[in-house]
Amino acid sequence: MTGTLRVAMIGHGFMGAAHSQGWRVAPRFFDLPLDPVMQVVTGRDDATTAAAAAKWGWAESSTDWRETIARDDVDVVDIVTPGDTHAEIAIAALEAGKHVLCEKPLANSVAEAEAMTDAAARAEARGIRAMVGFTYRRVPAATFARSLVADGRIGEVRQVRAEYLQDWLMDPEAPMTWRLDRAKAGSGSLGDIGAHAVDLAEFITGQTIDSVSGIVETLVDERPLLGESVGLSGTASAERGRVTVDDVAFFTGRLNSGALASFEASRYRTGRKNALRVEVSGTRGALAFDLERLNELEFYDATAPETELGFRRILVTEHDHPYLAPWWPTGHMLGYEHGFSHQVLDFTTAIAGASSPRPSFADGLHVQRVLDAVERSSAADSRWVQTND
Amino acid sequence: MTGTLRVAMIGHGFMGAAHSQGWRVAPRFFDLPLDPVMQVVTGRDDATTAAAAAKWGWAESSTDWRETIARDDVDVVDIVTPGDTHAEIAIAALEAGKHVLCEKPLANSVAEAEAMTDAAARAEARGIRAMVGFTYRRVPAATFARSLVADGRIGEVRQVRAEYLQDWLMDPEAPMTWRLDRAKAGSGSLGDIGAHAVDLAEFITGQTIDSVSGIVETLVDERPLLGESVGLSGTASAERGRVTVDDVAFFTGRLNSGALASFEASRYRTGRKNALRVEVSGTRGALAFDLERLNELEFYDATAPETELGFRRILVTEHDHPYLAPWWPTGHMLGYEHGFSHQVLDFTTAIAGASSPRPSFADGLHVQRVLDAVERSSAADSRWVQTND
Amino acid sequence: MTGTLRVAMIGHGFMGAAHSQGWRVAPRFFDLPLDPVMQVVTGRDDATTAAAAAKWGWAESSTDWRETIARDDVDVVDIVTPGDTHAEIAIAALEAGKHVLCEKPLANSVAEAEAMTDAAARAEARGIRAMVGFTYRRVPAATFARSLVADGRIGEVRQVRAEYLQDWLMDPEAPMTWRLDRAKAGSGSLGDIGAHAVDLAEFITGQTIDSVSGIVETLVDERPLLGESVGLSGTASAERGRVTVDDVAFFTGRLNSGALASFEASRYRTGRKNALRVEVSGTRGALAFDLERLNELEFYDATAPETELGFRRILVTEHDHPYLAPWWPTGHMLGYEHGFSHQVLDFTTAIAGASSPRPSFADGLHVQRVLDAVERSSAADSRWVQTND
Amino acid sequence: MTGTLRVAMIGHGFMGAAHSQGWRVAPRFFDLPLDPVMQVVTGRDDATTAAAAAKWGWAESSTDWRETIARDDVDVVDIVTPGDTHAEIAIAALEAGKHVLCEKPLANSVAEAEAMTDAAARAEARGIRAMVGFTYRRVPAATFARSLVADGRIGEVRQVRAEYLQDWLMDPEAPMTWRLDRAKAGSGSLGDIGAHAVDLAEFITGQTIDSVSGIVETLVDERPLLGESVGLSGTASAERGRVTVDDVAFFTGRLNSGALASFEASRYRTGRKNALRVEVSGTRGALAFDLERLNELEFYDATAPETELGFRRILVTEHDHPYLAPWWPTGHMLGYEHGFSHQVLDFTTAIAGASSPRPSFADGLHVQRVLDAVERSSAADSRWVQTND
Repeated sequence: MTGTLRVAMIGHGFMGAAHSQGWRVAPRFFDLPLDPVMQVVTGRDDATTAAAAAKWGWAESSTDWRETIARDDVDVVDIVTPGDTHAEIAIAALEAGKHVLCEKPLANSVAEAEAMTDAAARAEARGIRAMVGFTYRRVPAATFARSLVADGRIGEVRQVRAEYLQDWLMDPEAPMTWRLDRAKAGSGSLGDIGAHAVDLAEFITGQTIDSVSGIVETLVDERPLLGESVGLSGTASAERGRVTVDDVAFFTGRLNSGALASFEASRYRTGRKNALRVEVSGTRGALAFDLERLNELEFYDATAPETELGFRRILVTEHDHPYLAPWWPTGHMLGYEHGFSHQVLDFTTAIAGASSPRPSFADGLHVQRVLDAVERSSAADSRWVQTND
Repeated sequence: MTGTLRVAMIGHGFMGAAHSQGWRVAPRFFDLPLDPVMQVVTGRDDATTAAAAAKWGWAESSTDWRETIARDDVDVVDIVTPGDTHAEIAIAALEAGKHVLCEKPLANSVAEAEAMTDAAARAEARGIRAMVGFTYRRVPAATFARSLVADGRIGEVRQVRAEYLQDWLMDPEAPMTWRLDRAKAGSGSLGDIGAHAVDLAEFITGQTIDSVSGIVETLVDERPLLGESVGLSGTASAERGRVTVDDVAFFTGRLNSGALASFEASRYRTGRKNALRVEVSGTRGALAFDLERLNELEFYDATAPETELGFRRILVTEHDHPYLAPWWPTGHMLGYEHGFSHQVLDFTTAIAGASSPRPSFADGLHVQRVLDAVERSSAADSRWVQTND
Repeated sequence: MTGTLRVAMIGHGFMGAAHSQGWRVAPRFFDLPLDPVMQVVTGRDDATTAAAAAKWGWAESSTDWRETIARDDVDVVDIVTPGDTHAEIAIAALEAGKHVLCEKPLANSVAEAEAMTDAAARAEARGIRAMVGFTYRRVPAATFARSLVADGRIGEVRQVRAEYLQDWLMDPEAPMTWRLDRAKAGSGSLGDIGAHAVDLAEFITGQTIDSVSGIVETLVDERPLLGESVGLSGTASAERGRVTVDDVAFFTGRLNSGALASFEASRYRTGRKNALRVEVSGTRGALAFDLERLNELEFYDATAPETELGFRRILVTEHDHPYLAPWWPTGHMLGYEHGFSHQVLDFTTAIAGASSPRPSFADGLHVQRVLDAVERSSAADSRWVQTND
Repeated sequence: MTGTLRVAMIGHGFMGAAHSQGWRVAPRFFDLPLDPVMQVVTGRDDATTAAAAAKWGWAESSTDWRETIARDDVDVVDIVTPGDTHAEIAIAALEAGKHVLCEKPLANSVAEAEAMTDAAARAEARGIRAMVGFTYRRVPAATFARSLVADGRIGEVRQVRAEYLQDWLMDPEAPMTWRLDRAKAGSGSLGDIGAHAVDLAEFITGQTIDSVSGIVETLVDERPLLGESVGLSGTASAERGRVTVDDVAFFTGRLNSGALASFEASRYRTGRKNALRVEVSGTRGALAFDLERLNELEFYDATAPETELGFRRILVTEHDHPYLAPWWPTGHMLGYEHGFSHQVLDFTTAIAGASSPRPSFADGLHVQRVLDAVERSSAADSRWVQTND
């Protein structure tokens, strides 16, 4: 490695743990062009932020993100706070000349996302890089799916089905968290997990969604307020609050090629824990990726002899699969957090190589526009709405 | 058995073979209240109809369906012709005092289906029975799924996903058959297979679809005309014709309980051969039925301890599963055509017991109204449309 | 069809039902060279045999098998009695000039099987055909597996794993049936289901087992005697009897190519209902057949590019798959009893074509020798024992 | 944490990478009672060991393991060298008063393993801990399987099937590595992967194997010598060498309860990449663990109503599953190397709590005795051989 990359992370919840693991582990397995230094983590509360620094291995902690991004000894700002704060922090960081990695969704509104994208464009002109964290693109099986499509192995895309299903809100007494508050989260299942389905479907197919027709809906209107946070959820307090985001979203999108894609996002699908599944069907083949079996890819080669047609289960653990070479021997599985190491690899490579990393803020803005179009369609009796890119 | 039931079958294509197998095999395994007699098969062409009679074991053949339904020695008229002829034959048969079993879809239009339903109601008053052939209800795993829902094992239904996916039209040079001609088939994937998805989702949940928003679309506009029929397809002639039906249909339905259901019907989904899948998610559990593994049911009991939650694969081959007792020992599989024996059992039981068989013509009309509403929604920019029951 | 084939069936239990279904259904779907006539069924008890004749569609019933095989109007004797009676009936039938189809296992001992094979050889010289009923060879996916091996698609066979697992004897209070009585059944899991695993592994690989090392064992020594038969089991009487057959059998076999094959037969494997599974691994590929998903075959082509390797799930329901052409369209499943129609096709074809049907009595004798060798090895501290073909 | 635990690792191949990851990551997720310090890594070659230290994050490197274990600033010796060196290093380290973690197999021979176990017993008396690295015990689904058995959820164990299948030696031109050299590796598939199958089957069932009957065999006698190492394999040189270990091992074991267990280890099973699968069948249930889907456990509760019986797929990612609480939310997968963090947790907990960690050297010796008994049985015509514990 020819130099270091000093990182400041803003926020330290679930995503902070995942990002920390990425910064720590990536340099052990990949020959990064720049050596990440876990410089400082920043949060609102002094004690908990200091504890997070100790736990996740950051050299320092701070409670002032503006101070953090002003530091000379910080090269990268890694934003893992709730979506309502992304715009302010990211724009300030870019203007301060820091490379920015921002968790998804890029923002809670199209307007914020546009401002961020503008800021990224201005920064880009000065050699400053910005990337949004749709990490599932970097699960090797998903990356490999994209390359199969790009190589023409499934022919022209004819239909897509993408769904992201969870069930952790099934219990109507599960408490309100910031993820159920529109002011903090922007939207519910739609933005939290539907955003992943949109990004992954577009990433794998190499296409974009031009218009949508859909519906979003809240199934449980009122919940206990959050007592103490535990993991993604927590304990219930005696008071109740109003759920202001959607619980489920169903929509159909028109891809730029004209093909139709069907989407579903729900945190109400009993028995599905983290079921992000994308199926792509084309004129010469088909494939399916499922995050609950993230080391596998189903691939169907329609050009095989009729008697030998079938979906094959590829274990995406070979040396020549994306990102796999430095990890373990064939058949040794990767887990959820490995994508964060791959993200560090790609981001540091882009910074060192002076290239534009993907997914860019413009990519994140586009996803935000799709989500916004879904909400507008839902409000308009499910009429088709342009995503207005 | 206390008497016989003399059957006339109108039509003798793929469905004629399946129905013949039902009439022949059912009395060997079930104690039917009436003994079916395969009296006469009726078709348009003399030679091919006579050949069908010999092949499928009908005592006689005829080319005049009016004459057939007028016969004194016919108790039941079993209609397996394309949908454009259902109304005329079924109404005439009911008026002639014959019990009628009519293949799905009930008709090619709501108007025809209404007329048929009216005729069935008039006949019912005279003790004449009418049933529509949504045979997949009688796959034991599907019937068992309905009983789990009815018994409250999955609680209140919160979400449904139903899809019927095939790929036999992927090849743009596959020839036009009557199934691609709106005049004969009414619609394309929507009526051919989407109808099954609608009926099965409603059957399993015990609910009906009140309104829909959706889109139907033709992917291949023009195809070679059909030369010689082979199975469901055939050889291509040199001339070409215009495809007048949809290839794919995506729609969302609102169930009478308020829950949303997502549907997809396609004969363009590469690698899916006969993939009718219905997933039902409720407050206490979930289940999934898949016709490509028709002897299995996936069931998730959300009331299990957290560490033991999981979809279980039930082999629906136990003595106490629906329809299973007279068949083979546990673990010995049933196939596609067994549903037609179960249909014969249920239909003859209804006739002998003077009860109303289900799915009734009214059920068939309702499905037709759902399909019609999907087409109307598609034409109205996917706005929500009432099914107008 | 150019003539008829008049069939007498001896026995009418579970296997009688399956064979009856084969004789009735096969001529409806296949163009048989000879038209089967279900002439007479023969049993021990007058009333139950007459009832079986009525139920399964045999023209007459009889309680004297010797009389039956002496009839001029009988061309084929189909033996579906317990194994202890096979030799006497089959030899007499062959000597009476009748073609014989005998259920597996061919006999309860090697000596009996040898006598039967000798009788079949003598009969063969006079144009009389004999076949043993290893019907699972005729499940299309199993037949297709054999053709893949024969075509070199998996290269040289290196390893085989075959298991037949059920759990219907798990309950120690499940009553004694003839299948638990050595005098009637010859052996337990070994002969009842292990025989199928042996035959199917040999059939798919095209190889034979030369020697074995293994162990057989009885897990439950004593059970209630059988009260009334119900299906494969029945009610328990108050008296108890001694189980005289094995419950489980584990053995390793050496194939004639030198490759090793691992076998397990058990009616004590909790949760496995009818799990006959054969995995074959070769230098260029691998495959796996599982009777609980009998319409599927798993196939692995090791010559694919490294990144695209994977077991594919072939739905064996295509027109060009073995036996499939006259059945239903692609994706419409077959069940357990379809193999019996295929057996009728192959047997009548052999008779009409004056060729030797397979599996022959010699094939059945070979399986018996393997089973016998397993028992001898078990008695000899699991030393390797030649099968002595 | 109340103190530190200074670790020296001897060896730095594939296993060294995995162990390093465990030492680095465990303290970030678990509240360890002692804080590991990655003090020194020791290898044969100066440059490569220094490179390993840098890559995997060890403070120092050394080429003299005797010097390393003599250091005052080393508390733990972690041995990840080939099996032929384990005994010498481990005994010396224990005698030097260091806690020892030794990769499996414990040794290449029973005699060595006995000496190591004696040394561990002597050290234990002085408060020094020794553990052997059968890490797959610490895959949460495997640990959970053991607890289900211990809790009686499957009743009395009646049958076990354990197999560890890979295919990376299928190619007869794959070069010789130390894993194919009996002097270095002790045995082939048997010790390399069969050892895992033995340990995991015993761990899950809570039983031990008393006697075995089996066969081991070499399928490819001669291979190119190794040029340059790459991952588990490498490039082929022009010279050839003799393979002195087994390629496949098939054996049956008798558990101390009397139940039989069937084993297979093979690096020749086409299409199986890292397929360690253990199935346990009991009087009240059954379960199956498969390393290729390591976040899942199949569980069958035989006490469910007959119509609801079925293997359920439990996603072992819940907060209350073993080891899961500090990792990610439900449905976020773990990978191969997480077991090494769990190993660090358990080992440091034992050291801090002055308890004996498992698997102990005695456990490792027992596995070695089973492997040895398999080889002796193979040499004795597969007769049954006591494991002589």
